[in-house]
Amino acid sequence: MTDPAANDPMAALFPPGGLLARLRDANRDEWLAYTRHDFVRGLADGSLPQRCFRHYLVQDYLFLIHFARAYALAAYKSETLADIRKGLAAATAIADMEMGLHIKYCAGWGIGQEEMQTTPEAPATIAYTRYVLERGLSGDLLDLHVALAPCVIGYAEIGLALDCDPSTRRDGNPYADWIAMYAGAEYQAVAREAASFIEALAGRRGASARLDSLVRTFGEATRAEIAFWQQGLDAR
Amino acid sequence: MTDPAANDPMAALFPPGGLLARLRDANRDEWLAYTRHDFVRGLADGSLPQRCFRHYLVQDYLFLIHFARAYALAAYKSETLADIRKGLAAATAIADMEMGLHIKYCAGWGIGQEEMQTTPEAPATIAYTRYVLERGLSGDLLDLHVALAPCVIGYAEIGLALDCDPSTRRDGNPYADWIAMYAGAEYQAVAREAASFIEALAGRRGASARLDSLVRTFGEATRAEIAFWQQGLDAR
Amino acid sequence: MTDPAANDPMAALFPPGGLLARLRDANRDEWLAYTRHDFVRGLADGSLPQRCFRHYLVQDYLFLIHFARAYALAAYKSETLADIRKGLAAATAIADMEMGLHIKYCAGWGIGQEEMQTTPEAPATIAYTRYVLERGLSGDLLDLHVALAPCVIGYAEIGLALDCDPSTRRDGNPYADWIAMYAGAEYQAVAREAASFIEALAGRRGASARLDSLVRTFGEATRAEIAFWQQGLDAR
Amino acid sequence: MTDPAANDPMAALFPPGGLLARLRDANRDEWLAYTRHDFVRGLADGSLPQRCFRHYLVQDYLFLIHFARAYALAAYKSETLADIRKGLAAATAIADMEMGLHIKYCAGWGIGQEEMQTTPEAPATIAYTRYVLERGLSGDLLDLHVALAPCVIGYAEIGLALDCDPSTRRDGNPYADWIAMYAGAEYQAVAREAASFIEALAGRRGASARLDSLVRTFGEATRAEIAFWQQGLDAR
Repeated sequence: MTDPAANDPMAALFPPGGLLARLRDANRDEWLAYTRHDFVRGLADGSLPQRCFRHYLVQDYLFLIHFARAYALAAYKSETLADIRKGLAAATAIADMEMGLHIKYCAGWGIGQEEMQTTPEAPATIAYTRYVLERGLSGDLLDLHVALAPCVIGYAEIGLALDCDPSTRRDGNPYADWIAMYAGAEYQAVAREAASFIEALAGRRGASARLDSLVRTFGEATRAEIAFWQQGLDAR
Repeated sequence: MTDPAANDPMAALFPPGGLLARLRDANRDEWLAYTRHDFVRGLADGSLPQRCFRHYLVQDYLFLIHFARAYALAAYKSETLADIRKGLAAATAIADMEMGLHIKYCAGWGIGQEEMQTTPEAPATIAYTRYVLERGLSGDLLDLHVALAPCVIGYAEIGLALDCDPSTRRDGNPYADWIAMYAGAEYQAVAREAASFIEALAGRRGASARLDSLVRTFGEATRAEIAFWQQGLDAR
Repeated sequence: MTDPAANDPMAALFPPGGLLARLRDANRDEWLAYTRHDFVRGLADGSLPQRCFRHYLVQDYLFLIHFARAYALAAYKSETLADIRKGLAAATAIADMEMGLHIKYCAGWGIGQEEMQTTPEAPATIAYTRYVLERGLSGDLLDLHVALAPCVIGYAEIGLALDCDPSTRRDGNPYADWIAMYAGAEYQAVAREAASFIEALAGRRGASARLDSLVRTFGEATRAEIAFWQQGLDAR
Repeated sequence: MTDPAANDPMAALFPPGGLLARLRDANRDEWLAYTRHDFVRGLADGSLPQRCFRHYLVQDYLFLIHFARAYALAAYKSETLADIRKGLAAATAIADMEMGLHIKYCAGWGIGQEEMQTTPEAPATIAYTRYVLERGLSGDLLDLHVALAPCVIGYAEIGLALDCDPSTRRDGNPYADWIAMYAGAEYQAVAREAASFIEALAGRRGASARLDSLVRTFGEATRAEIAFWQQGLDAR
């Protein structure tokens, strides 16, 4: 058997016939509005006002704090030691490594950690992070992971799509690093692993009988991502 | 179509082919150890030392407080207004009505509410109640209801079984009232409704794909019920 | 000792020297931006476009569902039977009575329950409700009640302020009923009781040592209320 | 200023005038019953039947899984990035390092990981772990840490006390390694850090106004520890 990811990295993010592909297809309009948002187009051609990007970077810092909490919650909600470890590893990767990279990256944009720590969370940041956490607390581990998926998998798709698109501006694009980071092998591997974990969890937790509810969760989280891009764009 | 409950009240507690019947059958030994525990036999023939029963009654009061909390948690975890209302109605029925009946019943046994409020929770009480609540928080609404089921449905089965059994002592049995309460139409209706709610929820939340985990939850809750009876018996 | 509420109903909502007064004063700008929002002014002089009000009513219906869940959560998080009952009574009052009144009131504006049930939650609705619920889950009962306070107490202040203000238009104001409802004795009593419950809880849960955190929670919930009014206004 | 821990390692576990010392003193009988339990005495003089110790080791493995979950929950419930990281570090230390050491140590006693994974949780294991987790979910971060303290701090006190006691048997005591591990510098440093974290948290979360509730939590967790020793002893 050949590994579909070998030939088609996009298919590895949405395994054919799997839950994620069904969730995306059931929310096709929202998914396109998210992954092809004007903010994303502005990253692709470098036209995004840097003021918007800086606003986004600060809010993304605050967002990451709650994303680390969400994976800690996933560890708590796990039924097996293996799943506990996966949740902890993801939370630690965010709170330590990803946070560290983000802080370093933001320093390159002239934004210090102190500034990020003291900036209040903007409305779309609160909306998205608390939606995910609350969904995880009211539902089970699958509900939580489905609420997290548009971020984890979506950024991988966006990075990949921009990287493959010949019209993406490379020379002199101030956002080229950002695109390279999410298109890069390291992040793609994280997202592929997340996708395959969700597909396995979907089987164990009866996803196909819960599809309506999961479609709603995925859709609401996707709309929260759209609002998060828009919040950046509105800062211009 | 005829209503199976009309002919067979036991079948109404475990709808044939449904989740509850599967959970009970997968934990047959535990279920029998619970529903035919020496404490229950002592209720049936009136031989249970009254000291044991009094200990049980006080702990059952403390238990009910957390059972009200568990249904409040169910209301919080609900996805629809109808389910929220069901959870609240059950929690309120426990915290107000059932608690009131229990206090009145205990008064007949010479136990005042003050005494019950100030008695510390015994180990098996803590174990059972916190197990149920924590299962509800780490899992979803179905996990919570499956953890609650051995109590709600089990007491209905025990009441019914003792009431139907010709060998149950009726005259001069100090526990006749207790048996009559759980065998009574009111409690049986509550338990039947709980059973049918769980079966519907099972469908909506993909129970058949999650059977191993649900069997474990039902089994652990049943073992907690056995320990709760035993705790009463050990008070002699 | 005389009851301050007898003479000054506003003081009864923010008992002098108490936690609520400190939380409001520490968030003075946000509090004024909320209680004197253009949406509120539009209710006072009847100038609010009815389209905005209808949008608000539908979202308020969806909001109430989660507010009922928040009080159910409060019941779960309670340490005493008295507090459990208070939480359940509040949740039930919202899910049954207040919901019923709201549905009836909306019918008068030509909005059916079916329409409300099928309308998706708008961003500010999701942000506010999930913020409150998540704060309640990550913190304790006091954190939860402080997150709920801007809604419960704020609406009472707004109702009272509009009702006392001679410039509020009474004749032919389509929103006169709404104002009367929140200024009315029944709602004011609910809010006063909530205020005195929070003050007592503040003492029991060490509020004065936790002030920074509580000020932040109250501020974020107030900003969420501002965004909720603005969402209504933006629907014009 | 001199560091009290330099002279008195016990004082470092219960900083004088701090919360932990008050919680221990308010539960003095329970604390002695826990730290001087017959199981502990049997470790000290080597008289504990090995069968009891093996039973304890297996249950301690299952216990550790939930303790890792409890620290993951602490990370979720944290309000600052620093606290999130502390929670994750503790959870990861348990799930990876401590678990690894435990598995290795158990191998020395002829107990394989497979055996531990498939052994059902015994009643006292369920009672203790679910009590802690549920307390953490119904309360705040301080309630959670106070519920965890009897384990973390208590084992350090027990290790230290046995190690300092000249009557502790050293030669040919099969439990000498166990004592050395908890008396050792590494574990003592972990416990001291936990103690100083709790004292700081106590200040930030208003512990002195919440003392009754915290005393109850600490007492219940201590009783759960007693039951956990007893469960081992009863396996003989």
